[in-house]
Amino acid sequence: MANPVLVDVTRGDVVESRHRGAIAVMDAAGRTVFAVGDVERPAFPRSAVKAFQALPLMESGAADRFGFGDRELALAVSSHNGEEGHVAMARSMLAKAGLDEGCLACGAHWPQREADKARLHRMGAPAGRIHNNCSGKHAGFLCAAVQMGVDPAGYNRPDHPLMREVVAAVEAMTGAAHGADVCGTDGCSIPTFAIPIAAMARGFARFVTGEGLSPERARACTRLRDAAMAEPFMVAGTGRFCTDAMAALGGRTFVKTGAEGVFTAAIPGRGLGLAVKIDDGAARASEAVTAALLIELLGLDADDPARATLDRLAAPEIRSWAGELCGGLRVAADLSAARPD
Amino acid sequence: MANPVLVDVTRGDVVESRHRGAIAVMDAAGRTVFAVGDVERPAFPRSAVKAFQALPLMESGAADRFGFGDRELALAVSSHNGEEGHVAMARSMLAKAGLDEGCLACGAHWPQREADKARLHRMGAPAGRIHNNCSGKHAGFLCAAVQMGVDPAGYNRPDHPLMREVVAAVEAMTGAAHGADVCGTDGCSIPTFAIPIAAMARGFARFVTGEGLSPERARACTRLRDAAMAEPFMVAGTGRFCTDAMAALGGRTFVKTGAEGVFTAAIPGRGLGLAVKIDDGAARASEAVTAALLIELLGLDADDPARATLDRLAAPEIRSWAGELCGGLRVAADLSAARPD
Repeated sequence: MANPVLVDVTRGDVVESRHRGAIAVMDAAGRTVFAVGDVERPAFPRSAVKAFQALPLMESGAADRFGFGDRELALAVSSHNGEEGHVAMARSMLAKAGLDEGCLACGAHWPQREADKARLHRMGAPAGRIHNNCSGKHAGFLCAAVQMGVDPAGYNRPDHPLMREVVAAVEAMTGAAHGADVCGTDGCSIPTFAIPIAAMARGFARFVTGEGLSPERARACTRLRDAAMAEPFMVAGTGRFCTDAMAALGGRTFVKTGAEGVFTAAIPGRGLGLAVKIDDGAARASEAVTAALLIELLGLDADDPARATLDRLAAPEIRSWAGELCGGLRVAADLSAARPD
Repeated sequence: MANPVLVDVTRGDVVESRHRGAIAVMDAAGRTVFAVGDVERPAFPRSAVKAFQALPLMESGAADRFGFGDRELALAVSSHNGEEGHVAMARSMLAKAGLDEGCLACGAHWPQREADKARLHRMGAPAGRIHNNCSGKHAGFLCAAVQMGVDPAGYNRPDHPLMREVVAAVEAMTGAAHGADVCGTDGCSIPTFAIPIAAMARGFARFVTGEGLSPERARACTRLRDAAMAEPFMVAGTGRFCTDAMAALGGRTFVKTGAEGVFTAAIPGRGLGLAVKIDDGAARASEAVTAALLIELLGLDADDPARATLDRLAAPEIRSWAGELCGGLRVAADLSAARPD
């Protein structure tokens, strides 16, 4: 059974492409508040659960020991652009644990933005591991390993004590079994586990309510979520959905992208978590449908200061290289039932 | 009715993403040789019909007047990487018509490859119109306009005499109505028309058989197709599907990519044309399914010298940034009925 079309891509008056997928909005008790498509089909959350993967950084005491504030914690849950501010912060986190970027197991890639690549090219510098969008998360892993008193080498491997803690944290938050049968390797060379998006959504409801969590874990979740919402630039960067949405919403929502068309969010004011998976893996569609869903879930009226930003993110334009408007994305699924009564 | 899944994207043992779409393989008489999904749903061919759009360059006499050989004609039907060889050839074509890159209406973007961007950044040079992947096609348009004796200004507009010839050529080759109701603006600011992929496929069967075409048009098609197959680097560039496939197949197939998940090909030895449209617009899926289809349509056995290249293109690997194998693409549709008896 095919999932429904969530997003149409138009050019002129024609629908040029279509994105199918599923949406789950859950509360912490596991009640379905809104759902579209197959929310039980296993999907890899990829980077969308970085906030859960950062729990050992908090619970080991590493974040306190190294004096990490909102900016460090936001970078620890980020998929960043590799801009100067991100790179400097990742280096600083590693230095506080007596480590450097040579310890990172995430592999190297160029920064996201042309301006940041240009700066490296003008210096004749190569793409570095520190520019990897996951370098903040990996810096957090390394800091936690140091605090745990274990050898950081191989920290990204499934059998390393640090990674066992990381996987256990995601498994506990989502309540979905993380078995070898659903294990894959993420782009940054750590394990990722395919789980239902309903479980991801429930995990994010727990993340913002603390329901069913130990007091220590609930405090760690609150610190991570507040850090990300307070420092949205650190979570992604210039021109990025996560940064723009959290900056506009000012503490009302935590949002996080994951590769291959995954998006997650958490709404403290409603005690809800949401997860989206686009079947074909397209980020453009996961972003549009997440923005449209947040407009409904938050009941954003036309005069809400965040509304213009969310409207833009929900219906991005497609322009020619010369700047002409050619078409755009439009959400095709009816999301109105997600609006609070 | 949803089109079937053509390509699975795997990670570990799990299918992470799925690409649906349609395939049409036609002969010049309009007989369906092989089809999957809805081959009558209108789709924008985008750059996949550049060979048809280049017919006025040939038929106006411009290509002969300016002494264009295989390399120029291959660039005129290309979506190139903006490598040095492409840029120099586009400049040379414009100079022969007394024009320069300031006449191009395609807009500017950075070259595709990091190495070519790095060279520009080190010089402090901006992205230019000449680097636009369509600059060869636009250079061909401008040369044809000069030869036609019309003012080249506005050559990209639907009502310009040159563009009317271009649209008429695509309409005649495909036999599909190019009305205002299916007209959109392409990324390089020329009109593009949504037509059935069955019509695209039939057009490419005509392209390699000449059936139903005037002798002059049939000769123009033969020259364009032979030029592209003889100079595959000019059609795309380093590491690109069109270049690698045509280089491996050595004159057995013409292939051409189009944006938003379109691929077309033409097989002179079987008198067939094919067109693929991935519903969600993903190039990775259109490439994999086209390669798998060519293996079948050409009956490429294990000992064929092109088989290893086509196998690689049909099942690309997905690796982590550190180089570990994480998963890959695999064609999910049964294409065996496309193999010759």
